[in-house]
Amino acid sequence: MAIDASAFPPATGASHGGHIRLTSHASSAGSREINWGAAVPSHRGPVIGTTGMRAQRNVIGTHSGSYSVYRALAVAAGALSREHRADLTNTAPTDSIGPYPQWCDPSTIVSIDPWGAMIAEAFSAELASGLDIRPTIAVTKAHVSVPEIAEAITRGRLVPDGRVLLPSGAAVVTKVAIEPVWFLPGIASRFGCTETELRRVLFEETGGMFPELVTRPDLEVFLPPIGGQTVYIFGNPTDLANPDVELTARVHDECNGSDVFGSDICTCRPYLTHAIEECIRGTQSGGVGVVAYSRKEGRALGEVTKFLVYNARKRQEGGDTADQYFARTECVAGVQDMRFQELMPDVLHWLGIRKIHRFVSMSNMKYDSIVGSGIEVGERVNIPESLIPLDARVEIDAKMAAGYFTPGPVPDAEALKRVKGRGLTDD
Amino acid sequence: MAIDASAFPPATGASHGGHIRLTSHASSAGSREINWGAAVPSHRGPVIGTTGMRAQRNVIGTHSGSYSVYRALAVAAGALSREHRADLTNTAPTDSIGPYPQWCDPSTIVSIDPWGAMIAEAFSAELASGLDIRPTIAVTKAHVSVPEIAEAITRGRLVPDGRVLLPSGAAVVTKVAIEPVWFLPGIASRFGCTETELRRVLFEETGGMFPELVTRPDLEVFLPPIGGQTVYIFGNPTDLANPDVELTARVHDECNGSDVFGSDICTCRPYLTHAIEECIRGTQSGGVGVVAYSRKEGRALGEVTKFLVYNARKRQEGGDTADQYFARTECVAGVQDMRFQELMPDVLHWLGIRKIHRFVSMSNMKYDSIVGSGIEVGERVNIPESLIPLDARVEIDAKMAAGYFTPGPVPDAEALKRVKGRGLTDD
Repeated sequence: MAIDASAFPPATGASHGGHIRLTSHASSAGSREINWGAAVPSHRGPVIGTTGMRAQRNVIGTHSGSYSVYRALAVAAGALSREHRADLTNTAPTDSIGPYPQWCDPSTIVSIDPWGAMIAEAFSAELASGLDIRPTIAVTKAHVSVPEIAEAITRGRLVPDGRVLLPSGAAVVTKVAIEPVWFLPGIASRFGCTETELRRVLFEETGGMFPELVTRPDLEVFLPPIGGQTVYIFGNPTDLANPDVELTARVHDECNGSDVFGSDICTCRPYLTHAIEECIRGTQSGGVGVVAYSRKEGRALGEVTKFLVYNARKRQEGGDTADQYFARTECVAGVQDMRFQELMPDVLHWLGIRKIHRFVSMSNMKYDSIVGSGIEVGERVNIPESLIPLDARVEIDAKMAAGYFTPGPVPDAEALKRVKGRGLTDD
Repeated sequence: MAIDASAFPPATGASHGGHIRLTSHASSAGSREINWGAAVPSHRGPVIGTTGMRAQRNVIGTHSGSYSVYRALAVAAGALSREHRADLTNTAPTDSIGPYPQWCDPSTIVSIDPWGAMIAEAFSAELASGLDIRPTIAVTKAHVSVPEIAEAITRGRLVPDGRVLLPSGAAVVTKVAIEPVWFLPGIASRFGCTETELRRVLFEETGGMFPELVTRPDLEVFLPPIGGQTVYIFGNPTDLANPDVELTARVHDECNGSDVFGSDICTCRPYLTHAIEECIRGTQSGGVGVVAYSRKEGRALGEVTKFLVYNARKRQEGGDTADQYFARTECVAGVQDMRFQELMPDVLHWLGIRKIHRFVSMSNMKYDSIVGSGIEVGERVNIPESLIPLDARVEIDAKMAAGYFTPGPVPDAEALKRVKGRGLTDD
């Protein structure tokens, strides 16, 4: 195989049959500059991550997060032409979101392309000129039927109104899928390191992913191969930007074991469905609601690490007690948490949010990050005691002692020792 | 920044403060060979994806799939030492799975490290010698409470037995998290291309991820930055390998919008909870059950593409009809589906499965792949009509016409034109 360690992507739209370019240098004459945070789209410039027309690329990485690996498999299998260009007919957002002033500050949003949903309007001239620009955000409408909401109707806590909550029990939502688009100088600034350090560590600590991170300092935007987020909006999306309309909000990090399968070791699904109920109720009384769901399984440690920690917790001497909750994660993973709420407020700013009246979360990390980013937070809504599974007391008490919001008493060190979960062999 | 485009990982345990190696060449003297499919672990050799002790590495990529990017952020932020080594005390599997004969054939399992859960036994000597070997599989126990199962109890379809299904409504499961570990020659063979083609396309079509894919043909194992899978086992895990014990099984591909939020445009969650119910019932009558859940959101196209397709379907001329169901996906994505069930049976072989008595899936792609891999499939269990949401008729009818299993009549072309879903503005 002929290998030419010169340039990826090539400066010209070279054929794919020839040499492989292992990394590229700053010579992509045909590509458009990205002026992150510029107020006018034509000045900001489109994010172009196509692999089909490489001369146009102005980012590191490509679209669809980790699913780019499956796309590559489709090409390898001969099922997909590498030159396929998406037909975007009829795919435009069902609801218009923004532009908002928050979009025009290079430091307010650093992990989302604010123009990612409205490329057809924002970059119409560039699209007409043949640039392969793809949406990084998609907005649609849906009806969602959650069993816990049906239960809330049965018990009389919610009443269908035919608008927000239908007689069938389904809630009417606008939902938004968002791919990560990282502006590397802004990401570095959030984490308190230099951009050079960030690029080097991203390259080295992933086992050598994307050498362009270090060879192409001129490419400031990175489409990382990670999961994105989904936003569920209850009520009118434009109301999110109006601080006079009461906003109920939850920012939820993925927990497949609870969110889908209902594991009783944590409060994830019960808190999520409680937030949906609060959002519906708030919207019915003239407000608006939002749930932002981030793909950060197991505190962004992944599920293998999560299950290893479960075993270490359940088997340690003295059993699974709240006072050892964080210690066990740290032993296995090296940190208590890798979710880094530093990037999380971006989605709220993208939605134009300036005030959250009712924040359905007890996390001090989420709260501090949101307030620190300039969004006002009113009431903090804790999970009702009745929704906490017995085995999840260990987690919730450990978190309250570590700074989670609670309207009740904070457990002390002695109390934490007494809060004990189920053993691995208990029923 | 000093850049030395010579070697990643370095052949020696070089410090991280010096030059950056952009790619590496076949000179890692210190690393162990992997003989994929070898029957004896010491001959097979451990999979070593550590970034902390690079001289030991014998794979491309690193652990935790896409969460390696978050790990890198933790290092960049100064929260995690790059030399942190996991303390694996008490993390061993709660249940022993294998080894099975299927583990010892290099072509039967190509996307999972079969020894990934039992590294402590399989590679005890290597661990003692200081190699930084990490589990790629974790096995734990859990109690799962699914609202639809509580409903099945209320309606008398299920009765708690105190063993598989507790009086609380919780089911007792063994659950397994699995990271992808790809043996590239075997992956290429599954997709009918050469290994050289596969490596090149994986590199180029991801926008230049991991140059080692093309520069290091000696490294045959790749830890891709994608989501893995989770296995839920009902009953005794060792029974899975016994073809005389009735096995109820579902292989489910992630659909966050339905699995978590209950969107009515597809049958994903209803089919999943029906499978859980069937697994519980089957286990109560002396059988065993398994649900394998794969992180392949939106047919592995990702959620942004999925929502774009929803809009195109709902807005097309004539509305969202079943006869246009696949066409709309293909227009946007270039293919109807990117899930590639070719790799899916690996997890079943890892569990030792030789016969599935009751397969809770209508997918012909899944069925063909499983049967083609040598596993016998008995009855195919369709989703009960009463569980199909009204708006999901479009999808299920289109799929039945395209080859999905159904015990009833298959809709013809005329019928498909008449099956129509809700519009974007309908209630």
